[in-house]
Amino acid sequence: MSEQQPLCDIGFIGLGVMGKNLVLNLADNGYKVAAFDLDVDKVNAVIAADQEEQAEGAAARIFGCSQISDLVTMVKKPNLYILSVPAGDPVDKVCAALMEAGIGPKDVVIDTGNSLWTDTVRREAGYRGKFVFFSTAVSGGEVGARFGPSLMPSGDQSAWDVIEPVLAAISAKVDPETGLPIERTKPGEVVNEGEPCTTYIGPAGAGHYVKMVHNGIEYADMQLICEAYHLLRDAVGMSAKEIGQIFQQWNQGVLNSYLMEISAEVLLQDDPETGKPLVEMILDKAGQKGTGLWTAVSSLEAGTPAPTITQAVFARALSTLKSERVEAAKVLTGPALETVAADEREAFIESLHDALYCSKICAYAQGFALMASASKQHGWALDFAAIAKIWRAGCIIRAVFLQSITQAYLAKPDLANLMLDPFFQAQLLDKQANWRKAVAKATLLGIPCPAFSSSINYFDSYRTEVLPANLLQGQRDFFGAHTFERTDKPAGEKYHLNWSSSDRDLTKV
Amino acid sequence: MSEQQPLCDIGFIGLGVMGKNLVLNLADNGYKVAAFDLDVDKVNAVIAADQEEQAEGAAARIFGCSQISDLVTMVKKPNLYILSVPAGDPVDKVCAALMEAGIGPKDVVIDTGNSLWTDTVRREAGYRGKFVFFSTAVSGGEVGARFGPSLMPSGDQSAWDVIEPVLAAISAKVDPETGLPIERTKPGEVVNEGEPCTTYIGPAGAGHYVKMVHNGIEYADMQLICEAYHLLRDAVGMSAKEIGQIFQQWNQGVLNSYLMEISAEVLLQDDPETGKPLVEMILDKAGQKGTGLWTAVSSLEAGTPAPTITQAVFARALSTLKSERVEAAKVLTGPALETVAADEREAFIESLHDALYCSKICAYAQGFALMASASKQHGWALDFAAIAKIWRAGCIIRAVFLQSITQAYLAKPDLANLMLDPFFQAQLLDKQANWRKAVAKATLLGIPCPAFSSSINYFDSYRTEVLPANLLQGQRDFFGAHTFERTDKPAGEKYHLNWSSSDRDLTKV
Repeated sequence: MSEQQPLCDIGFIGLGVMGKNLVLNLADNGYKVAAFDLDVDKVNAVIAADQEEQAEGAAARIFGCSQISDLVTMVKKPNLYILSVPAGDPVDKVCAALMEAGIGPKDVVIDTGNSLWTDTVRREAGYRGKFVFFSTAVSGGEVGARFGPSLMPSGDQSAWDVIEPVLAAISAKVDPETGLPIERTKPGEVVNEGEPCTTYIGPAGAGHYVKMVHNGIEYADMQLICEAYHLLRDAVGMSAKEIGQIFQQWNQGVLNSYLMEISAEVLLQDDPETGKPLVEMILDKAGQKGTGLWTAVSSLEAGTPAPTITQAVFARALSTLKSERVEAAKVLTGPALETVAADEREAFIESLHDALYCSKICAYAQGFALMASASKQHGWALDFAAIAKIWRAGCIIRAVFLQSITQAYLAKPDLANLMLDPFFQAQLLDKQANWRKAVAKATLLGIPCPAFSSSINYFDSYRTEVLPANLLQGQRDFFGAHTFERTDKPAGEKYHLNWSSSDRDLTKV
Repeated sequence: MSEQQPLCDIGFIGLGVMGKNLVLNLADNGYKVAAFDLDVDKVNAVIAADQEEQAEGAAARIFGCSQISDLVTMVKKPNLYILSVPAGDPVDKVCAALMEAGIGPKDVVIDTGNSLWTDTVRREAGYRGKFVFFSTAVSGGEVGARFGPSLMPSGDQSAWDVIEPVLAAISAKVDPETGLPIERTKPGEVVNEGEPCTTYIGPAGAGHYVKMVHNGIEYADMQLICEAYHLLRDAVGMSAKEIGQIFQQWNQGVLNSYLMEISAEVLLQDDPETGKPLVEMILDKAGQKGTGLWTAVSSLEAGTPAPTITQAVFARALSTLKSERVEAAKVLTGPALETVAADEREAFIESLHDALYCSKICAYAQGFALMASASKQHGWALDFAAIAKIWRAGCIIRAVFLQSITQAYLAKPDLANLMLDPFFQAQLLDKQANWRKAVAKATLLGIPCPAFSSSINYFDSYRTEVLPANLLQGQRDFFGAHTFERTDKPAGEKYHLNWSSSDRDLTKV
């Protein structure tokens, strides 16, 4: 770097797809960025991209460098570094290199990778005193990174004043009146109005945990849309195009969301090779990267049920057993598959709409309940209205729906479950008859809808005053002397019936 | 110990409920046992119990000692030790004490605790060369320990010749013709005929993994019975006594099992305090000890779906939210709950029987598929016919049903899924109409049946040739460029559509 060049505002490390777009986003927002990657081609690529996007003769905004030690000399004091490197060891390696290059206790390093939240907790504690380790989870994919992602930052709150303006600048923005995203799609464009999709989430790890749950909800959302597609295809007998049009209609109402919008686009897309609907040429084996699975595991470990999210994870796993399914389809024949009669068609499609909507409420209820449980366990004091707010734009699950969730938690920050909010409660009661019909019909037809089904079972279990767990406790006391509580005695008092003796006496344990 | 006393066959450490009963079981089978516990009262208790059970003047069979170093001098060379101490640190502490007391490479230590299978793997490797660390999982509770448990041993196969006769002697026995347990209920009784409920499962850890899955299946089995009870109670309006009688009838047929038997007993039991049915006085909050949860987590991590088992775990967790449910029941009202009409009653009860049976097949199919996946991953070469055999008696899930599973795996050891076995396949096809009716009716009535529902969704997903995961892969490619495979191209070839460009071209990645 020549001596004429100005000192940069931010040092950026890791210029993969996400990193490159975050750097360009920062530059659009007026930050001078010193950029480093182990791969010098990536450094050159981001500078080239910047020059291409900018008017000829414009001042440079991005300055490349080939060593971390150089990077450190290029950034204003106190330093602010942003990392976009693969989760795991690389994060610690970069931190070590930065320390070796002389960063100190006042310098801030923000990890934007897909780190496991427990790693973030460990790092924040481990680097304390050496420099400020902060992290932010990023949702929105490549496009979000370039034009405004949803950001879930967490860490030492004392550093937040320095970090907030940067994250607020590059994040997606929402019109506070409508709750809808303010579009930004062109290089050089900046949105300075609206509410930024970022907020201080909590102590180290909280942001990545919240992002993990976001992804779990995303799994459920995607699976629910797929089940609606499956039923429209096999129970109603509609073509991909027809289903795409239905989804476009649904996208105008309460189901309005990014995922609904792109699902319609996928269904309406022709295959460039065969001219057939592309969706019919795509193999039905779903991949996954693990965050849905982590959410499901976390819900099991926390004892806070997220059955819809978990069924979505299982549905992906089951889809990969393609060759087994092909064989099973030959021998495990179902009921004769009749499509829905013409005169019931419209009502059935309406019932699917309501099933999708109610199931979606359950999936979000589970995700928020899980975050509440983690917040309590770890002392994070999460603000659920704020979290719902920053998911209204930039991220994959952005939807008009999140405006209603925001309002629910603004009205009652300690809401025990989203289903108990008056608005959602009314929606569920209003639409449950259709929801039940859709699930019952799918069951009778033999078309799987594991996420619809587990949602309605979640709803029905949650609203059941006396579940059959009394018998279960009786079984456990019978074979393992695990004891039970009594309905007519104070909570916590344990009783055991001596099942193996002839007089079967009851003892208080 | 006086010098006149004979050397013992086995050194036993840990005389809690399980340990004490295992020692008495060993003694009944002719083994002289040296018994140690940190708590000298427990040592005295087992000796007293033995004297009480034995004829007056009979030779002592159990010899107490107060230090591990004494114990080592009391056991024949090469030593055989059995541990029944709490899982975790205590196992390693006892091993350290035994090594300090001089045990060597030819001595064998068998851990019978509820250890996490990965701990067992670590121990077997860590103690290799110092002594032979072996483990066996034990199922059957207190009564099983005393009169014949189901034992799932694993470890270094070279030690198996020494261990097998001991485990075979104390385990439950099955009549090979009928597959039914040979009863043994009295102290001093020994069963020398029949097939023992133990077999060498595989390398270290395999036995505890198999036991973990056993418990996962047990969770599902219990929950399924509870759902049948719930529907008989709330959809049919039957009393606890009437339901107990139905369960007794069901216990005469294909549903014959220990858990069905004890469920009937619990339902028929009056409360000694109020005279009402006891089950109605038991609080509907289910406890759990973690093995069902571990199974669910393992299935998520292995990508081998066990939704019925997982729903059973979630159902327990949901039951604990009692106060939330009581509140929710007031505002989240369901459909007007009408009991099944008198003329449909018999058919509905029959449909519940079939729903329970088919769902049970799914739960076992999931458990065995999960074991197959672990066997492959860890190179355990599990023998599923042998595993089904040793579950026919002694353990909590013992049932006539396991004889059919044994036959399925004897006929085809590499069966991809239990549902594909000709017998179970025929059962499922024969009874699916009733199963569907039961689940559809429950859904319409608003009575939760998460395990029934997830089972039928598992069945329907598994037998669906084209799942809607094609749309899901389209979504993933749209927002994250995650690529997809094509139905008309070789497996493994990845494609990406450039969704953000105007010409949307397809590229092979």
